[in-house]
Amino acid sequence: MKLRVIKSALVDAVSHVSKAVSQKTTIPILTGIKVAADEQGLVLTGSNSDITIQVRVPKKKGETDQVFVEKTGQVVLPGKIFGDIVRKLPGDEVEWIVNERFQTTIRSEQAEFQLNGLDPDEYPRLPQLLQEQMFSISADTLKSLIRQTGFAVAVNEARGVLTGVLMQLESGMLTCVATDSHRLSRQQAAVEGSEELTLKNVIIPGKSWSELAKTLTDATGYVDIIVADNQILVKTEELEFYSRLLDGSYPDTNRVIPPGGETQLISSTRELLQSVDRASLISRDGRDNVIKWTMKDGKVEVNSAAQDIGSVTEEVMAKVSGPELSISFNARYMMEALRSIESEEICIQFTGTMTPFLIKPVDREDSLHLIVPIRTR
Amino acid sequence: MKLRVIKSALVDAVSHVSKAVSQKTTIPILTGIKVAADEQGLVLTGSNSDITIQVRVPKKKGETDQVFVEKTGQVVLPGKIFGDIVRKLPGDEVEWIVNERFQTTIRSEQAEFQLNGLDPDEYPRLPQLLQEQMFSISADTLKSLIRQTGFAVAVNEARGVLTGVLMQLESGMLTCVATDSHRLSRQQAAVEGSEELTLKNVIIPGKSWSELAKTLTDATGYVDIIVADNQILVKTEELEFYSRLLDGSYPDTNRVIPPGGETQLISSTRELLQSVDRASLISRDGRDNVIKWTMKDGKVEVNSAAQDIGSVTEEVMAKVSGPELSISFNARYMMEALRSIESEEICIQFTGTMTPFLIKPVDREDSLHLIVPIRTR
Repeated sequence: MKLRVIKSALVDAVSHVSKAVSQKTTIPILTGIKVAADEQGLVLTGSNSDITIQVRVPKKKGETDQVFVEKTGQVVLPGKIFGDIVRKLPGDEVEWIVNERFQTTIRSEQAEFQLNGLDPDEYPRLPQLLQEQMFSISADTLKSLIRQTGFAVAVNEARGVLTGVLMQLESGMLTCVATDSHRLSRQQAAVEGSEELTLKNVIIPGKSWSELAKTLTDATGYVDIIVADNQILVKTEELEFYSRLLDGSYPDTNRVIPPGGETQLISSTRELLQSVDRASLISRDGRDNVIKWTMKDGKVEVNSAAQDIGSVTEEVMAKVSGPELSISFNARYMMEALRSIESEEICIQFTGTMTPFLIKPVDREDSLHLIVPIRTR
Repeated sequence: MKLRVIKSALVDAVSHVSKAVSQKTTIPILTGIKVAADEQGLVLTGSNSDITIQVRVPKKKGETDQVFVEKTGQVVLPGKIFGDIVRKLPGDEVEWIVNERFQTTIRSEQAEFQLNGLDPDEYPRLPQLLQEQMFSISADTLKSLIRQTGFAVAVNEARGVLTGVLMQLESGMLTCVATDSHRLSRQQAAVEGSEELTLKNVIIPGKSWSELAKTLTDATGYVDIIVADNQILVKTEELEFYSRLLDGSYPDTNRVIPPGGETQLISSTRELLQSVDRASLISRDGRDNVIKWTMKDGKVEVNSAAQDIGSVTEEVMAKVSGPELSISFNARYMMEALRSIESEEICIQFTGTMTPFLIKPVDREDSLHLIVPIRTR
């Protein structure tokens, strides 16, 4: 393998695949980055037991030449050190030679590195996914789906499927659901693809879900999503993101979502968020981080008290309809839901002091968050 | 105690004293911030076993009223939570009432906090320092002294006085020295004060030294330094920084500093730093982080190799005089010294392969760094 490549393009590619590279692993070769040079340019792959990220550095980007391959070939290089070296190379261009024993020379201006490479045949193969179950979605919509559901998954590994995000597709509408059984977030979006394609129980690990958002940070336009039995692939022009799927059946969450509520509150997302954030300063050290809301005429009273520390009380202006109601809940759940909502105003519907309540943006129907209240003395 | 204060001024003051507040301590009241309101304004104090920071929020800053004291008084409030509350208050102004049982009410717009305060009489008194041993120095010079010596102290607590920075004053010239016995940094500066004032063995704990730099980040103009038997006080108009001093005698370091060297190298600080940084990518995982320099005609050759990983070689242009020489040393020591130097060019003087070498900016006499080389096979 012998080639030259523009440093900035290589730095970008390495920083993408590095996110998937294992730091500690029982499979030593997965601490490496696989590099393949072919007629089209350079392909880098990083992988761990959950996800695999593959990035292509094409020969040309627009009018600019990026990679000049003199001799095709493959090698696996130690991931961490290779990434650091690439970032710190002095020049704008990198010269790269790999011999038949995978000894690698990386040269840029006056600096020359020799790295001991590994045999690329030892590197795990990528899963081959049939393109049958495929749809497309705009990258921005996908990032918004992730941001509005990812925080609600269960973090304890023992919770099984609840550590993942459920993805369902029916009649061109994608629904993503996450719950840790104390709160739930559900977000929908229309996708492009066959109307007949139906997906029922696709469960993506929560960590993969948030890693995907980071990988797509700069992505624009549409991405393709391909689903197989135990893998999902998200593809852009230059990037492929694979994640394993979780085994098991995700519970039916529709029955826990109340149809509406007698007491309803409409208020500013930002002002409610800030008041809950302040109230949480008093409650966060305690068990469950409990704060209390009392819905009154034209306002919500926010309260929180901790015996050793003190208390806080605050009023937030709101349109309140229906009977007066007091309800206690975990402040963190409320903050995470409110932070994820992009709309300026939200509507909250309560069915009772001890039943789950619904948080929705006032201006859209495709988004809801549910929080289970806490019984207080 | 009853007062109103501009939020931004309070936020600044709290963020300063918070740096000294203990998170964990055997003296519970030191997790608090002491607040005193008097005719001149507000005084906040934070303290731990090493340092104490006191900040004054005066009634007026320039033409702007900052504090309106209706009733003087004192209280100690839980430091962490008080700081978070102040930062997150909604309004621009804070109303503050403390009753005789130290129950504290903090109000800003629609938010009202109640905090359980503690008796200020329980809070340790500040040391009273005689102003006899006092001198002044510009804040920028002091920060530069700290930046160019602080990194060289020993970090292992068992090393006694070497965990501190030695401060000496003679004939109006302040000398600061730090060494961990593998490298040494010495920096000098002229100060304002009595020519007769002599200080011989003032040893400031390394952690206090770097905390002081952070505290002075925004300080301009001159600061006063007052030294007593076991305390040092650094004072600006609105800020007092106290640190305990270390007991013991600092070793005489003058005899380890060689007078000059046969082989001498002059080069760009930045280019040398970047080449050492790259070479260290290969060596840093190994014991001692050893890299090798070979001084040749017109250049330094930088080498580093690690059996499992690979090697790196690089040449940096330099004016070299005297006999050719190869020397091995810890790359981190070199990087820390080079990073602290503000001059564009440095001069390095070698007396031999196994003797300490000197690093100096080419354009000034008040600064030197010494590194002890490492014997290699």
